[in-house]
Amino acid sequence: MLKKFGVVVLSTGLVFSGLNAGSSIDAAKPTNPGNGNGNGHKGKVENIIFMIPDGFSSNYASNYRIYKGEDAVWDQHLKGMFTTSSANSDVTDSAAAGTAMATGKKTNNGVIGLGPEGNTLETILESSEKVGKSSGLVATSTITHATPASFATHVKDRNNETEISRQLIDSKVDVLLGGGKDNFLPASEGGNQESLHLIEKAKEKGFEFVENRNELHQYQNHRVEEGDKLLGLFADDALSPELHREETSEPSLSSMTKTAIDVLEEDKDGFFLMVEGSQIDWAGHANDAAWAMSDVQAFEAAVEEAIEFAKKDGKTLVVVAADHDTGGITTGANDSLDLNAGVLQKVTATGEYMASQINEERSNIDKVIQTYTGFELKENEIQTIAKADDITHAINTVISQRAHIGWTSTNHTGADIPVYAFGPQSNRFTGFHDNTDLPDIMKDALHLK
Amino acid sequence: MLKKFGVVVLSTGLVFSGLNAGSSIDAAKPTNPGNGNGNGHKGKVENIIFMIPDGFSSNYASNYRIYKGEDAVWDQHLKGMFTTSSANSDVTDSAAAGTAMATGKKTNNGVIGLGPEGNTLETILESSEKVGKSSGLVATSTITHATPASFATHVKDRNNETEISRQLIDSKVDVLLGGGKDNFLPASEGGNQESLHLIEKAKEKGFEFVENRNELHQYQNHRVEEGDKLLGLFADDALSPELHREETSEPSLSSMTKTAIDVLEEDKDGFFLMVEGSQIDWAGHANDAAWAMSDVQAFEAAVEEAIEFAKKDGKTLVVVAADHDTGGITTGANDSLDLNAGVLQKVTATGEYMASQINEERSNIDKVIQTYTGFELKENEIQTIAKADDITHAINTVISQRAHIGWTSTNHTGADIPVYAFGPQSNRFTGFHDNTDLPDIMKDALHLK
Repeated sequence: MLKKFGVVVLSTGLVFSGLNAGSSIDAAKPTNPGNGNGNGHKGKVENIIFMIPDGFSSNYASNYRIYKGEDAVWDQHLKGMFTTSSANSDVTDSAAAGTAMATGKKTNNGVIGLGPEGNTLETILESSEKVGKSSGLVATSTITHATPASFATHVKDRNNETEISRQLIDSKVDVLLGGGKDNFLPASEGGNQESLHLIEKAKEKGFEFVENRNELHQYQNHRVEEGDKLLGLFADDALSPELHREETSEPSLSSMTKTAIDVLEEDKDGFFLMVEGSQIDWAGHANDAAWAMSDVQAFEAAVEEAIEFAKKDGKTLVVVAADHDTGGITTGANDSLDLNAGVLQKVTATGEYMASQINEERSNIDKVIQTYTGFELKENEIQTIAKADDITHAINTVISQRAHIGWTSTNHTGADIPVYAFGPQSNRFTGFHDNTDLPDIMKDALHLK
Repeated sequence: MLKKFGVVVLSTGLVFSGLNAGSSIDAAKPTNPGNGNGNGHKGKVENIIFMIPDGFSSNYASNYRIYKGEDAVWDQHLKGMFTTSSANSDVTDSAAAGTAMATGKKTNNGVIGLGPEGNTLETILESSEKVGKSSGLVATSTITHATPASFATHVKDRNNETEISRQLIDSKVDVLLGGGKDNFLPASEGGNQESLHLIEKAKEKGFEFVENRNELHQYQNHRVEEGDKLLGLFADDALSPELHREETSEPSLSSMTKTAIDVLEEDKDGFFLMVEGSQIDWAGHANDAAWAMSDVQAFEAAVEEAIEFAKKDGKTLVVVAADHDTGGITTGANDSLDLNAGVLQKVTATGEYMASQINEERSNIDKVIQTYTGFELKENEIQTIAKADDITHAINTVISQRAHIGWTSTNHTGADIPVYAFGPQSNRFTGFHDNTDLPDIMKDALHLK
């Protein structure tokens, strides 16, 4: 999966200070049954875990319930819904949405951490750092992508990921886990930076660096010292779709989330952690229902980690809120009264990957689709794919039809987005909001204003 | 608008007991600022107004906000969301959904007020009557349609509207306002009953009968006596879509709602009133965005009436919750980042009506569409309509594209549905529910169990 040749092996000789020094968090922290049901109005919040399933809306939630066959872990924690328009568009992109959810201010699509006039906006992560908390960002995209970038950087153009990586390493963020190694490496080593070697710079600043699942897992369940920093970049570009992850050495989103919590919880002043399920959005753009559902499932496992920690800790507020809907997904379609997302459980590849396996004559469509979906295509479905200009989209459309999932766009929509919350102060999210309200509510919960 | 010839003029000689006897409710009832914000956990509930916008989901809510240009009256009262599957289908129909929302029990699609085994289920309206409350049903469909029927009748097949009308007149419901006069008249008078004259029977039971807007309006703002009953049937079949209502003598939904409240509030024991915005669903089936938005607007005016009363009264819980989504509507579509539902404000007819105005040669498409929408069609849009098998659907599709509204079905979908509530005990609706929870919460609020 490494696209470029020049990746230096940086994984040798990693010694994490205090690695063998302490007991596990399970023993170190008492449970707090009083906040265990996550519905508290009261109780002090020391830590916030803000989990963002990029592109997810209530129709993803209802489709996912069918896919899973039971309620998702977030369903019972539903608190309200919120609007998402950006400063210059009815329908937001992830940069303006991330900025709104990080700073409480609207900006233009494409802009990260700045107002429409270019003024710098302080983020909830930065406010948390000011009062001594640690912070972390976790994503399955490049860690320099719009959503994580919005919490710790300030850049006119979200596409300037090399500037974002420079700002991330200059920032006070303590844990960075995701993809996008190329944005941290100089051209001489196959990276996207002109000459900066940001991984070396990070190490000079005290970061430990890991680049595969095994290395990351060394830092789970071990006591680390307050102030330790961890940089994990597990792919040159984005991480793999969950459907293809097992073929790589990449950690899961839940495993990255657990490790981030393990490191950050050492801070006696608490922490702010943002975790993004980045690729639900990309699946939505592709109208790829199986990719969407499997990445929602990977995200759910991460939310389970966060809630499990919050239950033990008693002072952690977990907030789950997407930035916008992608694709205009619907739960049911084509005049049927059946919901059938469960059939997507058998799908083992993205539509894009399946398309790559179809030969030039398009004579093996039925075999490829059957191999990766378990579906025996009907002749009209084969013909639809054979005649398509966009073969990936045609495959995804056929699969969505089988799953009775509808789509009305390959872009974002203006759907209201549900917000779920667990832990002390979680009832503050009850009701109808705008996306800019979310960080304000968090600041209130943390007594930061 | 009268489809059948034999409608007897029944509107003469109406005398409503106590018509001129009393003062208006404004003077009679003190305001109750303590419950004025509608967010109370506490406070006694005497009256419930359950308002059901048939077919409405959170994507209708977000599209309607664009259409209106500001928040709808319900937005700030959002409390949670709920699931809707029926006993025998992932996607419910209005009969099973109405039964669930009236009785707290799942049944099969098509069934009204009975369990899947045929057992009679007591409705929240009937439970309210048992403790001495008055009750009412208001709809813009036939008053014998699935949703109103579910609150006061028990019938195997929702299509058996003549049986439903018999049961309605036999029931203890005090106020019935809507369409469907033919279901109350014998065949000899052009009605659908074999020989029963249910309007005469109703009058024998003490109902006043009204059949147009002016007659109805006599009963507004006037004190009536406890125990008075009102039957208003304003069309042979369903009432008109709001887009066409002004051409008729029909009252608005808000005016029916106000009158129902004026009559029912005389009961010292309180009342249960169900008000349905019936045709949002029909617009959804037709993928007719302008019909949908204009009927949502008519429904909103009714909700405003209910909330205005609840604010004055202080003991009224208003609950707004649809039964299911219709059409798989989305807010935005076709890869655009613009929302444009405001253009629907200029549309003055349903797609079906416009289709009826297009000549056999289909040579006047551009003129007809411009007359009723204000849009100047592009040549490709004209051709799409000219070549369509289903000209109504083609017109509605072109209009929805202009409005950037997407649809994925002409049937119901399995989307989760938002619930809004105002008044004492309204916070009981906070969070994630099933549709069967709603009447249970109402019973709790009324101390009926």
